[in-house]
Amino acid sequence: METTMQNISIEKTEKTKIDQVDFDNLAFGSVFTDHMLVCDYRNGAWEVPQIMPYQAISLEPSAKIFHYGQSIFEGMKAYKDADEKIWLFRPLENHKRLNISAKRMAIPELPEEFFMDGLKQLIKLDENWIPKKEGSALYIRPFIFATGKGFHASPADEYKFIICLAPSGPYFSGKVKVLIEEKYSRSANGGVGFAKAGGNYAGQFFPTQLAVKKGYQQVIWTDDHNHEFIEEAGAMNIFVRINDTLITAPISDRILDGITRKSILPIAEDEGITTEVRKITVGEVVEAAKNGSLKEMFGAGTAAVISPIATFGYREVDYDLPELESSFASRLKKRIIDIQYNRAEDLFGWRHGV
Amino acid sequence: METTMQNISIEKTEKTKIDQVDFDNLAFGSVFTDHMLVCDYRNGAWEVPQIMPYQAISLEPSAKIFHYGQSIFEGMKAYKDADEKIWLFRPLENHKRLNISAKRMAIPELPEEFFMDGLKQLIKLDENWIPKKEGSALYIRPFIFATGKGFHASPADEYKFIICLAPSGPYFSGKVKVLIEEKYSRSANGGVGFAKAGGNYAGQFFPTQLAVKKGYQQVIWTDDHNHEFIEEAGAMNIFVRINDTLITAPISDRILDGITRKSILPIAEDEGITTEVRKITVGEVVEAAKNGSLKEMFGAGTAAVISPIATFGYREVDYDLPELESSFASRLKKRIIDIQYNRAEDLFGWRHGV
Ligand SMILES: Cc1ncc(COP(=O)(O)O)c(C=O)c1O
Ligand SMILES: Cc1ncc(COP(=O)(O)O)c(C=O)c1O
Repeated sequence: METTMQNISIEKTEKTKIDQVDFDNLAFGSVFTDHMLVCDYRNGAWEVPQIMPYQAISLEPSAKIFHYGQSIFEGMKAYKDADEKIWLFRPLENHKRLNISAKRMAIPELPEEFFMDGLKQLIKLDENWIPKKEGSALYIRPFIFATGKGFHASPADEYKFIICLAPSGPYFSGKVKVLIEEKYSRSANGGVGFAKAGGNYAGQFFPTQLAVKKGYQQVIWTDDHNHEFIEEAGAMNIFVRINDTLITAPISDRILDGITRKSILPIAEDEGITTEVRKITVGEVVEAAKNGSLKEMFGAGTAAVISPIATFGYREVDYDLPELESSFASRLKKRIIDIQYNRAEDLFGWRHGV
Repeated sequence: METTMQNISIEKTEKTKIDQVDFDNLAFGSVFTDHMLVCDYRNGAWEVPQIMPYQAISLEPSAKIFHYGQSIFEGMKAYKDADEKIWLFRPLENHKRLNISAKRMAIPELPEEFFMDGLKQLIKLDENWIPKKEGSALYIRPFIFATGKGFHASPADEYKFIICLAPSGPYFSGKVKVLIEEKYSRSANGGVGFAKAGGNYAGQFFPTQLAVKKGYQQVIWTDDHNHEFIEEAGAMNIFVRINDTLITAPISDRILDGITRKSILPIAEDEGITTEVRKITVGEVVEAAKNGSLKEMFGAGTAAVISPIATFGYREVDYDLPELESSFASRLKKRIIDIQYNRAEDLFGWRHGV
């Protein structure tokens, strides 16, 4: 047990598992590094985090996580540059969003230093796990869940904040086909859609399975009232290019405020691309697909980076998007990745050294 | 280890904790019996359940329950009659609903015999824990959650079904004051509101806390579109009596199909009470409160049984309900409790011996 300046105690693993990992063939989020960070909320306060070997957690069956879905998470990545320096991308935004989610789910907010110091120390300890292959990265999963006990439907009195690290390959493989959903919905007005709350994801699984059976990978969610507006995908915000204008829906209490999305907007502007943040109707997208003005659609998120959509389905019809020589998606993806991997100037001050 | 006919293995506790329990002062769902039932889903099938001492569960931090909210539950009660015979109330309905929730949350459905046999054997083993005090009961909590691992937002490949038992006192203490909610919502059209999914409850905690700060115990949810229709409360369906008609909202994909609610309707009819199942507008309830035709409002659910509402708040105004000599609520509550405790004829075949 060493103790660092920040009082985070570190218990190192006796034997690393890194030799067992095939870094050339990583799936997404299925291999975990040697260590994890654990921080408990008890007696009204977050206790000092501890770093320890990746290990199982013991919970009573009456812990509220099992019953009332009180859980939130974040998704981030760590990147290594040519000089082996480690970088994060806008990590303070993840911390801020974690606390926005926490508030909505009646979970106590986490102090910034516990998040940032814990994160950096954990990554440093497991830095050999950061994949070097292009398209792979160290996926970071901070999460909080209710450990407090009882069958009364009310907020727990105890929580655990954990960070796990997972060296990961690409989120999607192959061409991305999406289905515009008209029956099921992801979130309600006044609901929890803007929070990265566990239950928002479980609710998407069944409709997504139905879409997968029809040959799509993802559902594009629309509003729950008339299914008139395009909102977002499972774990991505959506961009649509009509002629030379790049459009994305405004965030709302139904839509996650994606960090990739809000980074793409200023980069696009810097690229001289006209952007619009406004409601997008399904009707206009279908119309644009028919008349040829729909040039691109892509998803944007930490896990999927920028994922061009090859085809969208709507009311039993598939609409293929053109294959462009030089797409907005590829230009923007290069710009954002070059910032993340420290291969380009950090115009907006987004890079954060570990 | 004994093995029963149904092949459910039973490992008994070495020492009961029952002596530590104050059965005269039970809170709701905070004391647990000596045993629990555990059943694992692995390799595409539910394995035979096991009964074992109530104990902690060990899970990897990457178990999907922590990340994607894949969890569902049920709430039931066991009752003891004057002859110490044990009864359940419509348990097959709980099993059916568990599987309806399972399907929507992409959780594998559970065979009826695992649910029913497991439940009965567990209750028999812990039958001394069934409280005898009027208003107390053995609360039963069957639940399923995702134990399968990984950070890919997709259904887990492994699950646990558990039943825990909690001798419990009343859910509410004192007069129930509710607030009709106009900003936050519980569920979306096409969402998961009809499922007893964990995330539906966590999403209610923050708005409920705000209501509690204003002096209410519960929120009455309205539709997420215009907040025009009264839907249900945190863990209760809602009934409104205007003059001599008892009205409750129709179930939908936003509202839980409560077993208490659907038992009250035929009992009310048998009592000669006119019932209506139709949309209830907030406007008509407020209007009825003002003109004196609103006689009663009550919540109905397994935990809360029938809980008369003393006051509802709407747009900063509190409306008190009259105190009636002989209310529908008390008549219906007596009828339903008498069936549950085997003190009255079981007209509808709802009682189920253990
Ligand atoms: C529902 C949802 N939308 C959008 C995103 C994209 O957000 P970000 O770019 O911050 O990863 C995510 C990502 O994790 C998500 O879960
Ligand atoms: C959201 C919600 N509505 C209504 C009810 C009432 O259902 P039941 O009568 O089956 O207990 C519950 C109960 O558990 C509930 O969680």
